[in-house]
Amino acid sequence: MIALSLIGIGTGNSDHLTRAAIRAMNEADLILLPRKGDAKSDLIDLRRTICADVLTGETRIVEFDMPKRADQPAYLEAVVDWHDAIAAIWMEQIALHLPDGGTLALLVWGDPSLYDSSLRIAQRLGPAVEVSVVPGITSIQALTAAHGICLNRLADPVLITTGRQLREKGWPKGVRDIVVMLDGHCAFQTLAAEGIDIWWGAYLGMEHQALAHGPLETVGPDIIERRALLRERHGWIMDVYLMRLSETLSPPA
Amino acid sequence: MIALSLIGIGTGNSDHLTRAAIRAMNEADLILLPRKGDAKSDLIDLRRTICADVLTGETRIVEFDMPKRADQPAYLEAVVDWHDAIAAIWMEQIALHLPDGGTLALLVWGDPSLYDSSLRIAQRLGPAVEVSVVPGITSIQALTAAHGICLNRLADPVLITTGRQLREKGWPKGVRDIVVMLDGHCAFQTLAAEGIDIWWGAYLGMEHQALAHGPLETVGPDIIERRALLRERHGWIMDVYLMRLSETLSPPA
Repeated sequence: MIALSLIGIGTGNSDHLTRAAIRAMNEADLILLPRKGDAKSDLIDLRRTICADVLTGETRIVEFDMPKRADQPAYLEAVVDWHDAIAAIWMEQIALHLPDGGTLALLVWGDPSLYDSSLRIAQRLGPAVEVSVVPGITSIQALTAAHGICLNRLADPVLITTGRQLREKGWPKGVRDIVVMLDGHCAFQTLAAEGIDIWWGAYLGMEHQALAHGPLETVGPDIIERRALLRERHGWIMDVYLMRLSETLSPPA
Repeated sequence: MIALSLIGIGTGNSDHLTRAAIRAMNEADLILLPRKGDAKSDLIDLRRTICADVLTGETRIVEFDMPKRADQPAYLEAVVDWHDAIAAIWMEQIALHLPDGGTLALLVWGDPSLYDSSLRIAQRLGPAVEVSVVPGITSIQALTAAHGICLNRLADPVLITTGRQLREKGWPKGVRDIVVMLDGHCAFQTLAAEGIDIWWGAYLGMEHQALAHGPLETVGPDIIERRALLRERHGWIMDVYLMRLSETLSPPA
């Protein structure tokens, strides 16, 4: 039997780790760390630092190369194929390093429940792998904490969505407050900016955290420019933003 | 000057505390703990336990009685008045215990950004109080972790809403996956249950954590009964649930 522990580690700051995460890391026999290519080498460095910071026992750390997601137009199919490939690699690593069973831990950016594939990939491993989840601080929480703001307005709902959804469907119906994740192309550009405020953050919780907020009309273009510069400088970027419709505007009905 | 640190402590399990939360608690000169009446004495006991568990230095702990929210029909007005009253008490306690300034910490259930009033109350304290936020694990993350599920479906949005919104407006437009918080009256009863699955959790992360999941048609009535029993047994209950529309149904357009 394999116990697979999916551990939310927050957004790359070892101060985001919970006591439960630290304990789960130390209880693991093996931690697998994914290598995602040179441009994202910061990301494995951060995971290595976190391991060095909190592991006190016999836990082994093994690195593996992540397959690349095919750049095919059918997005969902590409994702499914990619998850299959990652599951196959996990199984290989388990067979190699835990042939007699044991506890495997994977360090998941943010929280394993939110726009992360680990749980979906783990489902492909079959009944001999028992999965547990340790929650972690999400980039949404790191964003609102950094700006010192609430996610929701008093008694109001909030939608969590993606850049793709926003680009394809416009401002969502019936909500004034939305969080946009997984947006590599600044989908806010596709909106009529008037009456929208934005709170943006990149590299949240990390050393080079970047923040911006204000009316989308004026701050939006700044974010686009700054994002491109930061991405070039660091080789990668992860960002998230919250947008609010002004009280004077109504969301689409 | 007063530095006010709003520290997310997760859902009552000291293993939910992050390293940042533990550090911020220890850096505070004063931690104020709210007493919410006998029925909710577990809640202050949990905060006391967390303090005893992690404080290593000179931090003082002072308890105060929370005012009650008036039971008036105008919900939003009652909330605003209540926040004013709490702000006045915080100021009294600051004047009494930190007359020469210092760092005050408040331990916030879950995360200070999500359906919590502390940030709104803190805004009433004026410019001599500088607020910072330490994010914490929310009940939503504790729910998905306990069930071992993702919050979102692949590439899909998720709406976070309240029992009041659901009761008054029905299933929200354009989304298949919703989280319902602050629901004291099982608002899911007001929906046509067919094609909806529910994942419910109460006292998440705590010793007497309770979970249920399945089709709303069959599990909904069980949850209503169980919730009433648990509430009677413990004197209070905090719960949250995720509902998903079946792939074969469309959300209201």
